[in-house]
Amino acid sequence: MSVLFRKSLLAQVHLQRNMSVLASVLRYSEFGDPAKVVKLQKETLAEPSPGEVLIKTLYAPINPADINTIQGKYPVKPSFPAVGGNECVAEVVAVGDQGSRLKAGDRVVTFATGLGTWRSHAIYKEINLMKVPKTIGLAEAATITVNPCTAYRMLKDFVSLKAGDSVIQNGANSACGQAIIQLCRAWGIDCVGVVRDRADFGKLRDYLKNLGAAEIITEEELRTTKIFKDGIFKKPKLALNCVGGKNALEVSRHLDNQGIMVTYGGMSREPVTVPTASLIFKDLKYCGFWMTRWTKENSLSPKRSEMFEELFGLIVKNALAAPAHELIAFINYEKALTNALDIQGFVGKKYIFEF
Amino acid sequence: MSVLFRKSLLAQVHLQRNMSVLASVLRYSEFGDPAKVVKLQKETLAEPSPGEVLIKTLYAPINPADINTIQGKYPVKPSFPAVGGNECVAEVVAVGDQGSRLKAGDRVVTFATGLGTWRSHAIYKEINLMKVPKTIGLAEAATITVNPCTAYRMLKDFVSLKAGDSVIQNGANSACGQAIIQLCRAWGIDCVGVVRDRADFGKLRDYLKNLGAAEIITEEELRTTKIFKDGIFKKPKLALNCVGGKNALEVSRHLDNQGIMVTYGGMSREPVTVPTASLIFKDLKYCGFWMTRWTKENSLSPKRSEMFEELFGLIVKNALAAPAHELIAFINYEKALTNALDIQGFVGKKYIFEF
Repeated sequence: MSVLFRKSLLAQVHLQRNMSVLASVLRYSEFGDPAKVVKLQKETLAEPSPGEVLIKTLYAPINPADINTIQGKYPVKPSFPAVGGNECVAEVVAVGDQGSRLKAGDRVVTFATGLGTWRSHAIYKEINLMKVPKTIGLAEAATITVNPCTAYRMLKDFVSLKAGDSVIQNGANSACGQAIIQLCRAWGIDCVGVVRDRADFGKLRDYLKNLGAAEIITEEELRTTKIFKDGIFKKPKLALNCVGGKNALEVSRHLDNQGIMVTYGGMSREPVTVPTASLIFKDLKYCGFWMTRWTKENSLSPKRSEMFEELFGLIVKNALAAPAHELIAFINYEKALTNALDIQGFVGKKYIFEF
Repeated sequence: MSVLFRKSLLAQVHLQRNMSVLASVLRYSEFGDPAKVVKLQKETLAEPSPGEVLIKTLYAPINPADINTIQGKYPVKPSFPAVGGNECVAEVVAVGDQGSRLKAGDRVVTFATGLGTWRSHAIYKEINLMKVPKTIGLAEAATITVNPCTAYRMLKDFVSLKAGDSVIQNGANSACGQAIIQLCRAWGIDCVGVVRDRADFGKLRDYLKNLGAAEIITEEELRTTKIFKDGIFKKPKLALNCVGGKNALEVSRHLDNQGIMVTYGGMSREPVTVPTASLIFKDLKYCGFWMTRWTKENSLSPKRSEMFEELFGLIVKNALAAPAHELIAFINYEKALTNALDIQGFVGKKYIFEF
């Protein structure tokens, strides 16, 4: 496309839009307590250049990693000033060139990390946006790229699971835990979940079993349970760990020979303890998973579109719901950032900004 | 072959042999202190049946796993009465049938575990014996199936190493550690070894560097060394761990992203501690290796004969020597079993029975 032709196209688009967008943006320029260092700023957006898309954010969640990033505790350090957030669902307002596969009115999610999604409007590169069907709920779309994708890859990429096999996971009530439970149910895999004991354990167990867990047990029960030894469930080939410490050790004891423990979080802040004999004689393997790396390494892989198609399909037939969440107006960001890490609720409920 | 024909063949062999072999055997019928539960017994051997071979043992080593097995601390439990030992080099005395690929006078090693090699003579199945060239030293042949094979497989099967790459190992002065050092030298890999600090550290370092280690450091030095950060050696892709505990943790910190720690022993009797961040963000993997399982799973694999051919070749050209050892007459087995686990010497010197 010649420069002149492109310029004339842009002018056209600009005229059609007749816009001057004033965006609200949550920015921070130093690491620290999110409620203190994050500031709401206004900015006028330039029109999108070729290859860019102007979007209007609909929903954007607050994930634990977003908070850790602002605190400076995450291994990925943004350059300042930085905008918070890594997920959102948005509506396309305008595209930078007519050849785009996107058009105004399309619904999209961002699918790269570090884009800073906590803003009412943004101009992103088109390659960082994925069109999503409008048949998908906004909360599901806004939260699809982190937890369901993490759950999906961990269940697919480490051992070959078939219907009737078992998986054991701790932190089963986390947002990712809930996605793991639902994917297991969809694929006929028995998911046994471990949660900390609590006053309303019965209620939590019922909630997670209703979501599709084969069984939910407490950390206490984990030490003595015979559900695998007695053959109620097959010995798991895969353990998914987001807790670490003693909990992870006890989970690993239930793994079948040659089983794998995949660690994707460490909520106890304690390392994973691995008995030598389990490595040598049981041939267990321990590895980790980080969705950010997977996405980076597979940005052009067909595996990626296959994954999203399957996840969209499950959402459409109500087999995969968003984790328990609470919508909060973007303007109330201070409350959200203050409470994000200890929002009430027995499942790891999360805030989602509504614009 | 018809039964009659076979019988006549056997008779022939028997006549040729004109033998009645009285074997000395180290047996035990309960778990416990090896010096107490192991007894020297005499037994007359029947003639070898078809598929069997009568051998006369030349050298048979005492490995730590042999002692642990007698103590009842090893996961493989023999049925009683049991004969100790898992390695030997021997000479073929007679074969059970003429069609055998072996003949009297051939030199062989046992290559299955649990055969009980601490005996002056034995009848083994032919499939459990491998012919070895007579150009190979007896000590090398007697100790080839455990440590050099373990070292070989760990260096070959977990990451793809090429000349100039680095490997880090602890327990570098163990019998397996010495094999690892020599194989690394043969393949152009920089092997950095870690040993406990000791009075004669300088002597040990020189010994191991002379064997082919790129560098030998103490556990103390391990915590602060910059040999990888400063680029003196490449960051290792592979760590070999036979110690566990803090030592293994410190070793793992030097691994390159996506590196693997392979555990094959746990001399500190402490588990391996794995920081959550190293799993998620560095993508480290932790697994184990057990030669017994590999041999079981690969008994018919061409990988096995390729391995032995390469090891024999290295021994012949003096690139792979037996670990430091002390020959001890079989008759002095009580002394050997009493001292086997703490034989003097700065490298993990081992006893080899001489017959």
